Parts: sequence; structure tokens; C-alpha cells
Amino acid sequence: MIHNPAIDAMMDRASVRRYRKERPSREVIETVARAGIQAPFASQLHSILLSDKPKAPFGAPLWFTICVDLHKLELFMKARGWKRVTNDLAMLVFGIQDAAYMAENMVIAAESLGMGSCFLGESPWLADRVAEEFSLPPLVMPLVGLVMGYPDEKRPPRPRYPLEYSLFEGKYPQLGEADVAAMMKAMDEGYLAQDYYRRAKAKIPLEDGTVAEGREDTFSYDDYSWTEHISRKWGQWYRTPDDLLEQFAKRGFSLLPTAVSGAAAVAPGGGVPPSGAGEGKKH
Amino acid sequence: MIHNPAIDAMMDRASVRRYRKERPSREVIETVARAGIQAPFASQLHSILLSDKPKAPFGAPLWFTICVDLHKLELFMKARGWKRVTNDLAMLVFGIQDAAYMAENMVIAAESLGMGSCFLGESPWLADRVAEEFSLPPLVMPLVGLVMGYPDEKRPPRPRYPLEYSLFEGKYPQLGEADVAAMMKAMDEGYLAQDYYRRAKAKIPLEDGTVAEGREDTFSYDDYSWTEHISRKWGQWYRTPDDLLEQFAKRGFSLLPTAVSGAAAVAPGGGVPPSGAGEGKKH
Repeated sequence: MIHNPAIDAMMDRASVRRYRKERPSREVIETVARAGIQAPFASQLHSILLSDKPKAPFGAPLWFTICVDLHKLELFMKARGWKRVTNDLAMLVFGIQDAAYMAENMVIAAESLGMGSCFLGESPWLADRVAEEFSLPPLVMPLVGLVMGYPDEKRPPRPRYPLEYSLFEGKYPQLGEADVAAMMKAMDEGYLAQDYYRRAKAKIPLEDGTVAEGREDTFSYDDYSWTEHISRKWGQWYRTPDDLLEQFAKRGFSLLPTAVSGAAAVAPGGGVPPSGAGEGKKH
Repeated sequence: MIHNPAIDAMMDRASVRRYRKERPSREVIETVARAGIQAPFASQLHSILLSDKPKAPFGAPLWFTICVDLHKLELFMKARGWKRVTNDLAMLVFGIQDAAYMAENMVIAAESLGMGSCFLGESPWLADRVAEEFSLPPLVMPLVGLVMGYPDEKRPPRPRYPLEYSLFEGKYPQLGEADVAAMMKAMDEGYLAQDYYRRAKAKIPLEDGTVAEGREDTFSYDDYSWTEHISRKWGQWYRTPDDLLEQFAKRGFSLLPTAVSGAAAVAPGGGVPPSGAGEGKKH
């Protein structure tokens, strides 16, 4: 493992949930945002909202909402006499990447400036409320919240899977029982060694009306760890896509196939980008 | 604007399309990947594929494909006696973010180690081919290609919108004609000053069978610039979502609403995460 200041800023980072009250200067805020928008991009399909409410999650002085933004794109396309024809799903696949690359630059910039940060993943489900608060035009979709400020706690970086289970050369391996056990062990023992969930009081309850119903919760904070925690999220939460699809629809995005949406037929051979290496591949 | 090594690594970066042949060392590759997986995350819903083919786009020595990966998640959930119930769309919204935050860490780590990189956006449309090449299990979806290596060219960073059009405090502004003109001017004059598209021979042709049909191409490399280039992408390409939806379906992801997919009804009140600040909001 090679070390330098940029890599250390990434390796030493942990999400921060306690902040000092001090508000970062305008120069600090603009540096973070400016480093954000310099991220590699397709079409700058993003915007950064900064809340002016006095209260933010975890008492953070800065509360950003990172958005996918097709509004600015359509404004300049119209000024050029063009109309967007690319489907919304493709735009979202590119736009979420644009917004996420920007957000991650902001996270690392913050770290390098002595700040901490924490992502809040529920923004897409709250899109209508964010849209109202910020008077969002159509085609601006909140993707993720990001709080930021000077930390009032110092936490070690969290464990990750051993690298051999994330970097695969030539072939994705068949992961057998021993591999799964090794992945789980690294994560669960790593979090337990930090006493992470006890300190965060973060045990997720077993919910009525879910697949967990009737299951006895035998876990205490002595053995409740990462794989159980993550299992309780994706084994209980967000079962239907309908509410998220509705939030997308309210912001002007449709993810339906042509046969369902009844969109006009596409001219044969049209609308496919050129293949082969080169600019056509770099979005 | 504040400067430090991490911020400079982000600000000085430009995508590289010419590479030296020298293969980065195993230590360099592992450092980049390790910095990648340390990115903030929900559930490590990602994997990095590294091609062992002798040829890569732009002659780069390293050719990664960044994937959204639910396979590892389901393996350890099964080992814990859980079954994933969260819908595929929500998993993708989180998984694309996981994968993108990781990818951007890799980009910055590469930059800090003297390498360059370039994203290749078409991977989701080639998912079946990537799946065959790497023997991908179900629920592993290629998101983006990333080539990397020591650069054989030095290019200045590309322009971005002025920050006032990306960072909005309290309210998303109404962007009038003068604003749109200012955004376009910054981008178009910035690219023309670098003679970017002429050097890249990157003009996108007006295609038959598209909305551009019959339009006369009056642009030369003296006035062809960013807003025209981007307009020609999203004014001509990827009109139907059906091929992308098919690629998702082949990898095991369905994005259909419940009424269309016919999924089982959800028990009333079940499957919604707890509201309020705290761990429930941080994915």
C-alpha cells in the first residue's frame, strides 16, 4: 500500500455524526463545491443545494443535497435549437454517476480541509419535500444528502472486505462457503472491535409485517455486527419500488419500457451512438 | 479557492486518452483499488473487474470495469438466514452510488500516483458481453469502464460552469436567458480556447433517422464546442430505454412498478425504514 496525502485523506476517512458548531468559511464551502464540479463528467448533469435552515442532521453546520439535474442541459439544448431525445433511464444512469463523482470529490476535499462528512441516503424518497423547499424546476432529482463540518469526534475508518473479494482479474471467482465466511468475519470482527453498533445505538429492530416476523431477536451488542445490520436493512426495507417510481415521476422522470409507456416508435437504426473507441465511448 | 495536494489532484485532472505502455506495479494497482473500496458506502454493493486482455481502449495498460454487485450481499444474507426483499430499483439507486463513490476514489488515487484515467460510459449497454467475458454471476451489473495508466499526454483541466450555476443556497434560482448564455459561454469559449474538439477529432455527425435529419451541419472546428457536442449526444442517442432495461433484466434486475411486474402485495405498513435522524438515514 502506497501512501500520500490524497490517499491518506481517503483511507483515514470515517463518516462523522458529531460536529462542532463553527460554520466553515465561504472560501471553504466554495473550495469544496469547486473541487466537486471538477470531477469527471458526462454533461454536468448535477447541482448542489445548500440548506439555509438553522437545523441539520447530526447538528452539522453544512447540509448539502446532491441532485441529478437535466434542467440546465435542456435549457442550453433549447437555446441551440435541440430537443433531448435520450430516454430518462439512460440519463439517470449517467446523471447519477455525474452527481456521485461530484459528491465524492466534495467528501475528499472536505477531509483534506480538516472537515468530516456523512451521506444521507434517503433523499430520493423525500424528493417532493426537497423540491418544495428549494423550488426545484422539473428534471432536478435529489439523489443524496451530504452533511459536513468540523468534527467533534474522531472515529477510526470502518473495515472493508479483504481486497481479494473486491478486485477480480480476468474472471469473477466462484465464491464458496469459506470465502463468504472470510468476508463476513473481516466485517463483523472489524466492527465489533470498534464496538461500533453499541456506541451508535444502531441496532435495527425486527419489524412486524416483514419476513422477519416471528423471528426471535437473539442478538445483543456483543454479537450484533455488520452483516446482521445490513441484512436487517435489505431484508426488511423498501419492498416495493412504487413510491420511488412515484418520486421520479413527480420530478419528470419515467423509467417505463416503451411497450408500457406507449412512447412513439423509434426510427429503425436511429438513436444508437457510434461504436468503437473514442469520444463516443467517453460520456 | 484553497489548495492542498488532495484538492490539486482533483483540480488538475483531465481525462487521458494516450498512455505509456508501462504497466503499473501490483502495489500501485492494489493501492488504487484499496483506496476505492474505502469510499463511503451503504453495503459495499460493488466489485472491480480488471481485464487480462492484451488490448484496452486508448492503449491503456489497465482496464477496469466497475460493477454494482448484489451477489456478495445475497451470499452473506443467505448465510445469516435472511432473504433480500428490497426492490431492485432502490438497490440500484444505492448500488450505483456505492460503485461510483468507489470509482471516483480510484480516479483520485490514480492521479495522486502520477497516473491518468478515463471513464467509458457504455458498459451498461454491453453488460451481457462483460458478463460472458468475466463469468459474472447474476446481480452483478457493469456500470462504467475505467482505463488507467501513466499518461503520454498532458492536457489542461476542462472548463466547468461558473460555480454560481452549480451551487444553490436556499433556493434553486430561475435561470433566465442571460444565465443560460453565461453558462454556455463559459463552456464553449473554454473548450475552444483549448482547441479541444479539433485535437480530438471528436465532432459528432448529424444522424439520419433522428431529430437532426435534414438539418444542415454548419459547424467547423472553429465554432463547434461543448454545448453543441453535448446537444448532439442527448439530441440523437439512446432514444428508447428498452435495450438498457433488457440488459438490466439479463443481469437479474427488474425496474418495473408492482402493477406491471405483478409482484406480491406488501403487507400494510411493512417495509418502510424508520424515519428521523440517525443510522436509519445513513445508507
